[in-house]
Amino acid sequence: MSLITLITDFGSCDGYVGVMKGVIAQVAAGIKVVDLTHRIPPQDVMAARFNLLNSHRYFPVGTVHCVVVDPGVGTARRAVAVAAEVDGQPQQFVAPDNGVLDGILSHAGQAVVLSNPHYWRTATPSQTFHGRDIFAPVAAHLANGVPLSQMGETVAISTLARLPMAVATLLPQGCQGAVQYLDHFGNAVTNIPAIWVTAKRWQLECRGQQIAAYTTYGDAPVGQLLGLIGSHSWVEIAVNGGHAAHRLGLQVGDGVTVSWL
Amino acid sequence: MSLITLITDFGSCDGYVGVMKGVIAQVAAGIKVVDLTHRIPPQDVMAARFNLLNSHRYFPVGTVHCVVVDPGVGTARRAVAVAAEVDGQPQQFVAPDNGVLDGILSHAGQAVVLSNPHYWRTATPSQTFHGRDIFAPVAAHLANGVPLSQMGETVAISTLARLPMAVATLLPQGCQGAVQYLDHFGNAVTNIPAIWVTAKRWQLECRGQQIAAYTTYGDAPVGQLLGLIGSHSWVEIAVNGGHAAHRLGLQVGDGVTVSWL
Amino acid sequence: MSLITLITDFGSCDGYVGVMKGVIAQVAAGIKVVDLTHRIPPQDVMAARFNLLNSHRYFPVGTVHCVVVDPGVGTARRAVAVAAEVDGQPQQFVAPDNGVLDGILSHAGQAVVLSNPHYWRTATPSQTFHGRDIFAPVAAHLANGVPLSQMGETVAISTLARLPMAVATLLPQGCQGAVQYLDHFGNAVTNIPAIWVTAKRWQLECRGQQIAAYTTYGDAPVGQLLGLIGSHSWVEIAVNGGHAAHRLGLQVGDGVTVSWL
Repeated sequence: MSLITLITDFGSCDGYVGVMKGVIAQVAAGIKVVDLTHRIPPQDVMAARFNLLNSHRYFPVGTVHCVVVDPGVGTARRAVAVAAEVDGQPQQFVAPDNGVLDGILSHAGQAVVLSNPHYWRTATPSQTFHGRDIFAPVAAHLANGVPLSQMGETVAISTLARLPMAVATLLPQGCQGAVQYLDHFGNAVTNIPAIWVTAKRWQLECRGQQIAAYTTYGDAPVGQLLGLIGSHSWVEIAVNGGHAAHRLGLQVGDGVTVSWL
Repeated sequence: MSLITLITDFGSCDGYVGVMKGVIAQVAAGIKVVDLTHRIPPQDVMAARFNLLNSHRYFPVGTVHCVVVDPGVGTARRAVAVAAEVDGQPQQFVAPDNGVLDGILSHAGQAVVLSNPHYWRTATPSQTFHGRDIFAPVAAHLANGVPLSQMGETVAISTLARLPMAVATLLPQGCQGAVQYLDHFGNAVTNIPAIWVTAKRWQLECRGQQIAAYTTYGDAPVGQLLGLIGSHSWVEIAVNGGHAAHRLGLQVGDGVTVSWL
Repeated sequence: MSLITLITDFGSCDGYVGVMKGVIAQVAAGIKVVDLTHRIPPQDVMAARFNLLNSHRYFPVGTVHCVVVDPGVGTARRAVAVAAEVDGQPQQFVAPDNGVLDGILSHAGQAVVLSNPHYWRTATPSQTFHGRDIFAPVAAHLANGVPLSQMGETVAISTLARLPMAVATLLPQGCQGAVQYLDHFGNAVTNIPAIWVTAKRWQLECRGQQIAAYTTYGDAPVGQLLGLIGSHSWVEIAVNGGHAAHRLGLQVGDGVTVSWL
């Protein structure tokens, strides 16, 4: 039995997400749907990319991930489906071609444009809600086992949209990077990979503050800033029992320097 | 296999919605539950009506929609279940009789009051949480296939509560109506039906602003107000990449004039 | 078929909860997951305790409740699983040993520490996300029917963490207690049990206000403060159509006096 995940910027105040689930249930009655998040800030394709990248690998083989953060809905931007190997197992992805899939393209094997209206909810979709009329039903048909190639023409993966990413650099005495995401707890996830941090003792600097590294939140004194290896396997900035983003006024893109001690 | 949808004003901070799902699982272990929204503003029966009206038709035959926005809980207001044909297929609705079902009564075929305690969670329900003790278990029994008539006495559909709605008027040179809903994106959904807008070129006026019509958000310049046919099939006011309700200070009930060009 | 409930402070902005569901689906494909709430205020073990205590009894026999409000994640605090009889039927609970299970320990029969990495997602769990790497997979294995005793060594229930609770006192002329929880509607749930209130007529006092008791919200005039027996079976303070917590500036711990009339 397959599973569909959803990432959108639809919020939870309206029926939009529920309607997508109704459409999925019409196509694939037994399919389980898991909400990854619907609180991507409106039109924030970078945040959608981050959440998909850091969540998809925890789902079973055959999962179909459907991302609808789609400022260009109804314009000439393409809608796509992509097959990728995740830890050696197939998963599929359905989304507008605007960069939200950027994080998973490195292991993509096949991509198609969603040009076959046979798998849409209606041949005359709304100009403003492709989540309901195209993405949800296509995801449901894929979860039902319909081959990706049925959804439309193959396109080269190299033609799919990428996002401009801040660069992280590994140096002899440490590394440099930037904040790439602020989470619900106010933790700042940087773009510095955990595997670069091989030194036993290190610290980081951000917004002019020197910040000591610890293994976990509770190892730092309550209320103190800390650096740590976050659960996403990126270097992270946090406050034990507090909100690092508020404390430092952090924003996505802020520079971060890690130094070995 | 049937499905139950939920619309409430319970929010997501407390266990109220989860408890309703626990009660449903006790009655109907295999039933799927879909959240339409739990963020109806407290006691806002108009917003509940809008979300049910614009969502229910996207669900499979046999779906049971359960709406618990219930300022009169525990008072003399009736609790009801209604059977209706949706695009020729049966669906059922369970709710307090306070107008939240107003949008679906035009295709209703049968209605009963929920007077049979055999299908409640307990014969002595809480005076303040009929969602848990009456509406959820009744919805679950209906989803299990128990006939509507078992839930209580038949009542005439004409006796069910309606809501006072702003009137929309079709005129030779356009139409007049009002904002009926503000969504998560700040888009203002009017009560002017899309099928009235047969002119190829049109504009609208709201709060003293002349607003040009486009096919979709991304066709307007970024940051510009636009009119469009929304995905709910109502005329809608939006900002490309922005929040129309904040921009214009919009409120439900604000007048809107559409003019053919 | 078993069922898992989730209570966390992860919010809904990020993929954390969805990832836990992905891990559960990898272990137990057919298991249903119900969200109790993910909006526990960060690190608020008292609020997690309240929501678990007042929700768990509405779930089917065999339900596994998983609570991840875990300020001490990665430190020496224990992770535990507990079996308890709920209305004579077995349920199981998985959580950090920090007091979130305090409300259900009175009917607990067996407890183990989660020391067996065979049932974790990985033998090298993240130091900061045991929800994903330990609690979710353990809950899924328990839901699959793996015996509790497989998860680790038995520990005495008397050693599990309790929380300091405000005391409620039954007196000849009434009772005294305190606010223990503020819900989404602004209703203040006290720690005075409903079964203590045997007088037909009573009133309460809080923050210097005399407040009359009614049977349900809608029995009081619109906008008026009222006392009532809430659906959780505690004495509650509310405003008909309003927000009692804002009206009175209420906080958890505020004293409440009930007087028979």
